[in-house]
Amino acid sequence: MKILLVGANGTIGRAVRQALSRHQVLAAGRDSGELRVDMSQPDSIRALFERTGNVDAIVSAAGLLHLGPLAEMTPEQFRIGLDSKLMGQVNLVLIGQRFLNAGGSITLTSGMGNEIPLRHGSNACAVNAAIEGFARGAAVELAAGLRINAVCPSVLQESWEPLQSYFPGFEAVPAARVARAYQRSVEGVETGQVFKVW
Amino acid sequence: MKILLVGANGTIGRAVRQALSRHQVLAAGRDSGELRVDMSQPDSIRALFERTGNVDAIVSAAGLLHLGPLAEMTPEQFRIGLDSKLMGQVNLVLIGQRFLNAGGSITLTSGMGNEIPLRHGSNACAVNAAIEGFARGAAVELAAGLRINAVCPSVLQESWEPLQSYFPGFEAVPAARVARAYQRSVEGVETGQVFKVW
Repeated sequence: MKILLVGANGTIGRAVRQALSRHQVLAAGRDSGELRVDMSQPDSIRALFERTGNVDAIVSAAGLLHLGPLAEMTPEQFRIGLDSKLMGQVNLVLIGQRFLNAGGSITLTSGMGNEIPLRHGSNACAVNAAIEGFARGAAVELAAGLRINAVCPSVLQESWEPLQSYFPGFEAVPAARVARAYQRSVEGVETGQVFKVW
Repeated sequence: MKILLVGANGTIGRAVRQALSRHQVLAAGRDSGELRVDMSQPDSIRALFERTGNVDAIVSAAGLLHLGPLAEMTPEQFRIGLDSKLMGQVNLVLIGQRFLNAGGSITLTSGMGNEIPLRHGSNACAVNAAIEGFARGAAVELAAGLRINAVCPSVLQESWEPLQSYFPGFEAVPAARVARAYQRSVEGVETGQVFKVW
């Protein structure tokens, strides 16, 4: 398979490259790598697909959130997650659906928050829930034979040090384990699913 | 109680006024009524609260979504729901939390889509899921004693005619029944909940 991986240089992205290494993986990133893309800009995504041509799978492991206390949160801060992790991935789907080969798939990244409230996490809760809702909603609307899922990882072992105060008593998971969920989405048959890794 | 109701002139808003009629309800709307507010504009919300002063409850039954097929959806169309129903209600919370009396509550409106995919509903699925995730996330972050919930109504009997093609076999509910969920949120003790009315 020819797979476009956005966010290829992040902790999850690197593990996904490893898990999908028997395929041709086109590694895209915002700030590094050969293929550059800013998901918040539809024109940037269109330019990326014009370079790659059609692909068999699109995988996103990218997007920023805002973590901070609700009492001090500004609308501008809340928009960080909305514009980056949510709208960026939505843009990737709206544009990318036209560049998928028959039988192709899209895999997005959500995160905890839809079911579990997190400290300083009201932006994460909203954005991650939206991504999962969108994946379920888009699954029944994509052209016949195309699939879309979301992977919902727990906090990564690799990110435990800076993030542990948000996740007291949670079990961190290794990125390599999270990567298996992306492989399941890409190589499997399911659609409209959220693969929780926690 | 002194209750600010945004979206007071919509089908749900009118029923909520009725259900909360033993309280002092300040009716706000985008296009009609004495109190005008554009929830997508933080300055407009701030101006509204400067007029009302502190309140005991904030209820939102407002916000637009985009309904349409995914294959033709543009990022701009997707942003309709994001800016209006999602970010509008988030703005109301971020600003309104400072104008709530002790023991006060906020009640938002989501809709089906978090659990159920809807025809032409990928925007609704994302936005409604985000509102529910946000309510759960904000509930643990609000100042002590304040509460927040979301009401998730099915399609209304009053809106059945134009919307029925999106909801084959669904059971429409009367707005008066939906309004009871808002009353439960305002007068009750629960927080971080989604009150489904279907």
